[in-house]
Amino acid sequence: MAASELRIGMVGYGFMGRAHSNAYKQVGQFFPAGRRVVLKAVAARDAAKARGFADQWGYESVEADWRKLVQRPDIDAIDICTPNNLHKEIALAAAAAGKMILCEKPLAMTAADGKEMVDAVETAGVPNMVWYNYRRIPAVTLAKRLIDDGRLGKVFHYRAKFLQDWTIKPDVPQGGAGTWRLDVAEAGSGVSGDLLAHCIDTALWLNGPLARLSAQTETFVKERTHAVTGKVQPVGIDDACAFLGTFANGSLANFESTRYARGHKALYTFEVNGEHMSLFWDLHDLHRLQVFDYRDDGPIRGWKSVHVTDNSPDHPYMANWWVPGLAVGYDASFTHQVADFLKGLDEGKPVGPTFRDAYQTQLVLDAILDSAKTQRWVDVPQG
Amino acid sequence: MAASELRIGMVGYGFMGRAHSNAYKQVGQFFPAGRRVVLKAVAARDAAKARGFADQWGYESVEADWRKLVQRPDIDAIDICTPNNLHKEIALAAAAAGKMILCEKPLAMTAADGKEMVDAVETAGVPNMVWYNYRRIPAVTLAKRLIDDGRLGKVFHYRAKFLQDWTIKPDVPQGGAGTWRLDVAEAGSGVSGDLLAHCIDTALWLNGPLARLSAQTETFVKERTHAVTGKVQPVGIDDACAFLGTFANGSLANFESTRYARGHKALYTFEVNGEHMSLFWDLHDLHRLQVFDYRDDGPIRGWKSVHVTDNSPDHPYMANWWVPGLAVGYDASFTHQVADFLKGLDEGKPVGPTFRDAYQTQLVLDAILDSAKTQRWVDVPQG
Amino acid sequence: MAASELRIGMVGYGFMGRAHSNAYKQVGQFFPAGRRVVLKAVAARDAAKARGFADQWGYESVEADWRKLVQRPDIDAIDICTPNNLHKEIALAAAAAGKMILCEKPLAMTAADGKEMVDAVETAGVPNMVWYNYRRIPAVTLAKRLIDDGRLGKVFHYRAKFLQDWTIKPDVPQGGAGTWRLDVAEAGSGVSGDLLAHCIDTALWLNGPLARLSAQTETFVKERTHAVTGKVQPVGIDDACAFLGTFANGSLANFESTRYARGHKALYTFEVNGEHMSLFWDLHDLHRLQVFDYRDDGPIRGWKSVHVTDNSPDHPYMANWWVPGLAVGYDASFTHQVADFLKGLDEGKPVGPTFRDAYQTQLVLDAILDSAKTQRWVDVPQG
Amino acid sequence: MAASELRIGMVGYGFMGRAHSNAYKQVGQFFPAGRRVVLKAVAARDAAKARGFADQWGYESVEADWRKLVQRPDIDAIDICTPNNLHKEIALAAAAAGKMILCEKPLAMTAADGKEMVDAVETAGVPNMVWYNYRRIPAVTLAKRLIDDGRLGKVFHYRAKFLQDWTIKPDVPQGGAGTWRLDVAEAGSGVSGDLLAHCIDTALWLNGPLARLSAQTETFVKERTHAVTGKVQPVGIDDACAFLGTFANGSLANFESTRYARGHKALYTFEVNGEHMSLFWDLHDLHRLQVFDYRDDGPIRGWKSVHVTDNSPDHPYMANWWVPGLAVGYDASFTHQVADFLKGLDEGKPVGPTFRDAYQTQLVLDAILDSAKTQRWVDVPQG
Repeated sequence: MAASELRIGMVGYGFMGRAHSNAYKQVGQFFPAGRRVVLKAVAARDAAKARGFADQWGYESVEADWRKLVQRPDIDAIDICTPNNLHKEIALAAAAAGKMILCEKPLAMTAADGKEMVDAVETAGVPNMVWYNYRRIPAVTLAKRLIDDGRLGKVFHYRAKFLQDWTIKPDVPQGGAGTWRLDVAEAGSGVSGDLLAHCIDTALWLNGPLARLSAQTETFVKERTHAVTGKVQPVGIDDACAFLGTFANGSLANFESTRYARGHKALYTFEVNGEHMSLFWDLHDLHRLQVFDYRDDGPIRGWKSVHVTDNSPDHPYMANWWVPGLAVGYDASFTHQVADFLKGLDEGKPVGPTFRDAYQTQLVLDAILDSAKTQRWVDVPQG
Repeated sequence: MAASELRIGMVGYGFMGRAHSNAYKQVGQFFPAGRRVVLKAVAARDAAKARGFADQWGYESVEADWRKLVQRPDIDAIDICTPNNLHKEIALAAAAAGKMILCEKPLAMTAADGKEMVDAVETAGVPNMVWYNYRRIPAVTLAKRLIDDGRLGKVFHYRAKFLQDWTIKPDVPQGGAGTWRLDVAEAGSGVSGDLLAHCIDTALWLNGPLARLSAQTETFVKERTHAVTGKVQPVGIDDACAFLGTFANGSLANFESTRYARGHKALYTFEVNGEHMSLFWDLHDLHRLQVFDYRDDGPIRGWKSVHVTDNSPDHPYMANWWVPGLAVGYDASFTHQVADFLKGLDEGKPVGPTFRDAYQTQLVLDAILDSAKTQRWVDVPQG
Repeated sequence: MAASELRIGMVGYGFMGRAHSNAYKQVGQFFPAGRRVVLKAVAARDAAKARGFADQWGYESVEADWRKLVQRPDIDAIDICTPNNLHKEIALAAAAAGKMILCEKPLAMTAADGKEMVDAVETAGVPNMVWYNYRRIPAVTLAKRLIDDGRLGKVFHYRAKFLQDWTIKPDVPQGGAGTWRLDVAEAGSGVSGDLLAHCIDTALWLNGPLARLSAQTETFVKERTHAVTGKVQPVGIDDACAFLGTFANGSLANFESTRYARGHKALYTFEVNGEHMSLFWDLHDLHRLQVFDYRDDGPIRGWKSVHVTDNSPDHPYMANWWVPGLAVGYDASFTHQVADFLKGLDEGKPVGPTFRDAYQTQLVLDAILDSAKTQRWVDVPQG
Repeated sequence: MAASELRIGMVGYGFMGRAHSNAYKQVGQFFPAGRRVVLKAVAARDAAKARGFADQWGYESVEADWRKLVQRPDIDAIDICTPNNLHKEIALAAAAAGKMILCEKPLAMTAADGKEMVDAVETAGVPNMVWYNYRRIPAVTLAKRLIDDGRLGKVFHYRAKFLQDWTIKPDVPQGGAGTWRLDVAEAGSGVSGDLLAHCIDTALWLNGPLARLSAQTETFVKERTHAVTGKVQPVGIDDACAFLGTFANGSLANFESTRYARGHKALYTFEVNGEHMSLFWDLHDLHRLQVFDYRDDGPIRGWKSVHVTDNSPDHPYMANWWVPGLAVGYDASFTHQVADFLKGLDEGKPVGPTFRDAYQTQLVLDAILDSAKTQRWVDVPQG
């Protein structure tokens, strides 16, 4: 019965397929709610791999064609975990079939595609969400609370970086299972859509709309072998991407992402400097929020390292986990997102980031690539 | 069929019941092996709570009496998650019934009790393990590898601390569900058995036997209300416990634990200083291992903060999780322990810490309390 | 006798007057060389203050007019510690009088002024230097060595920030003794010339010429009272300034400075990401250099925190100070700069940053302000 | 004229001779007071070295025999910078000659010697001080203020460590200029007197008397060549020393020092855990004080890293130095100590640590060695 269950049909079975599946399985144990998640089916072209994934994770069945999956009446929600170039087609079909959709980020290859997807889910009236999971790291959610409570006062600066170093070697291929993110045909863009998109989603959520920006992109390695075809092809993605800009609230933006920052595995950081308070977060120590409170007593004023692990209402989501001092991992952010999605279903309320929220991130991404190409400041369209 | 399954019967349903259950459910997804874990039944005196726990976590049935649980033929292994004062009785019964046993730490109230338990499982020939989970935090396991590879050279110092601050207020009660750890009748001891036991288990594993020691204990709050009886009773546990000592390898020991260190939630740290290399680990940043390698080039010699998150054989257990930079949480240590236990079953090998390993920790704990009481240096018996 | 002495005439007596004077006094004690520094005279309009300063620091005499100072035959070198708007006039006069010149940074109000100053000292053939002192923090000098040794390989990214928070309150005045840095008439620019200039000097030294850039400036507080006149005046300086760009070696630049980053007192940081090695430094922990060496052994690869305090040739300048582990402060950077200047005199070699080096920084600063004003990418002229 | 001057006669010219001399020269510039310090003479057996030192640091004259120095009428204060075994003889002579005395730490070879020295200066009525300089690192002084203000509440724990790693190699000699600290005949003891003495001085100052303790010492390298005689001799010092104990205020002590902790250059750390607030300090980042304030708002409670560099009354001594964010080094602690000593002279008040204060540290040191030798808990005599 759909009312007490959320029956998932997943498309794809990669890294993200695992992360989402783990969340679906954990949510009822740590965040029990009215609706129980059922792993109904997984669809993938490679039947053997789909079967193996289904067995390992407990999906009841497999489909070789995602088109069949989206038509199955025993499925409530489609989870899209494919490379980016398939998001739109699947989402449009799923919306047409009246399915809820949980789509991996970035929403789309372009803002135009994203707009079509927003229109589809809004016309169909189906609940929808995009897996910008970092909003639900407890320390990040705590940052949101502090900002919403007005503790920062006027904001002057918002900085974000997402630094990696895994593509420095020119012999890393592009395309295919493990490296589709380097193939512009499958990914749409490089670090902008893959990494900076996370930074933008968080920023729009925490600090409001971005008004204008000036961007720069670079492709350090110009040619790479395609993992499937074996041919050496030009690299079409951005290896590095940065922009300066201004938010609608008057604060200044400095964003950067790269896969050429030796020493950084997945260093997503953001910092917000407000009149009264500043906040800093770092994915490499995801359980901590750094807080500077100017209202603290002068002699002992300093950056506080808040270990966001209290099992109390003080620290978002943590009352449902362990005891103070014991951190959850990266995976918990997905569990929290599912928990919130289920709660939204029960309450009949949309849960962000919705397709519409993620479409705004696409508009920023398009503006970035446009600015980098034209070498000009551009206004960010507000969707 | 028992050969392809490990059917769990759990006694207790508290914090640790949740941690173990999560591990049982995750292990097949992240560390698939021959044997599948089945959550068969949970036993607890409070039938409603047991039922709620079983529903939330997917246990097939409940038992009001653990004695029935240990007799059930459809159960392979008993997981003991009760307060310490019940460990022995349950373990002896389970061993007598031929069940494997996974017992929460500390193994026993005293070394003498622990010895009975060791004899019971060894006589019965049943696989057995104690949940000293910190051995399997990837950074800690990496420390073990570095030591076993001989990278440290002669060891001069081993230091460990486990600091908390949750019992400072005198109105925290003793006894009962949330606070049995403060009641000597249920816990056997205070921070020594609860916190220092972890430090000792890791130390014996990493650095070998402790030869002798001089200890100190303190009880800062002398009386607390009992949560169940409502009576004000003397506090029988140690609130703080420290010892100096010497390991069999000649290195010096400095160990300390307390629940009165304001600002520390669960700060378990250890440091090993070897001739060539030193290691430091900290539960509050459990995904990092600090390494100083004297053989590094002089001008750039320094403590390295190793983010133990590479999905490669370089970093223990991590190849089965996410991608570099994305940390697992506290919970993963239990999943790793179950994975190793299952592998041990398949290979027919004991997996540490066994009851015998944990018994040695009890001997150290007894020596500590004895030394603190007599105010003398004592030799640690080797079990 | 001038050959064995360096007789200093200082103009100004503020914060920098003290920093330089301390260095002049320390250099012979910690870095004894052939030439002895003699504090001959200090010039300042306020005779009483000049006298007080001279007494406190041991200057032999005072002058009310710097023009007299530069004409005195018993003075070898003029040290310019005035607000920026006086640098050029004094430097031209001093060069014309054949004096060596040590000038506070930034060299000039504009690149054009800087060019006049370069021409003056080069025509006069007098030794000259600009007080970009951070080059000689031992950790920064160590970074230079590592780069010059080729340890980093191809560089992909260079990031620098200089963040402060002392002008957030609108009632901070502009102009006058303590706040001339907020008055465009005295300072020439805001954070760009004051803070970013330091970042640029270090960057050009470590990573070579900047080729092009796109900048952004902001003035958050539009009007401030003038400390001397008491009138509310428009604020002409940049409160915040950032730019993206490309170095001649192909690496990408991301620079930012502000006085509105709550929680940061003087957080000058830089990071260089090379193919094989990355470096990070932070003025708030100035005695440390963070080094990531990809050639380290995989399992223990991580950022090293190098405590640059070994009294050995491994760590620049430190053999002349204390013993390992004991850090020098901010002040030592000036002492080191004087030591190098004296050594340069003995060897007859220019010591950087010379006026010509600092002029190149002025060209970058002009390009920044031009880009910010025109909202365009600009090529940086190479002086 | 003695009233407006403090004329120094120094005995010794090593590492500490330089540290003190720098302080004498800086104090008038950064902490101008009524009395001017004059470097009158330095005494040392090696006349050439004494002369070189005097030239470099500006001492007016040299003496080959310290006995002459203490008799000179143009000297007000004797600064004792010799190895420990000469402290007493010089101090007694200086006191007898009516000189003020500034003595390097530890005060004496034994408590009995220390007592003679206390009696001598108190009988003579001469101002006296011991160079436990770490009290005057601004972050440490700030800790003292916070404690004296009662911010910590009841104290439960005080921990201190002083870890080094420079004597691990067996070929480091003992005795002589650079290594007298390894020769028991010159040093009296090993790390206890050299390193732990610092920890004890700070602790007694911050947390009051130590009541009782149980100690352990170890000598890892049993024989070393004597640097002067060339003979292999037994090592008489303690290479490592630790103790547990209880302070008079009921808090527990855990102290440790060693020269065998690979990776630590001079890692002096202390931590105080109070009911409401905890403090942590670390010599390797001497400009920071870590503060945990339990009264902070729950969601943002965490350890604050206070950068003790504000040039305001908030941060001890710092108003006389630079601007916020710019740290002073190790050397400043000596400058502050001289500044306070001069102020004490003007006010006619003793300035700690006096000989009497330092004698209490000797009593603790004797108790430590006694406890380690007898393997018993001992009460600490209160001097």
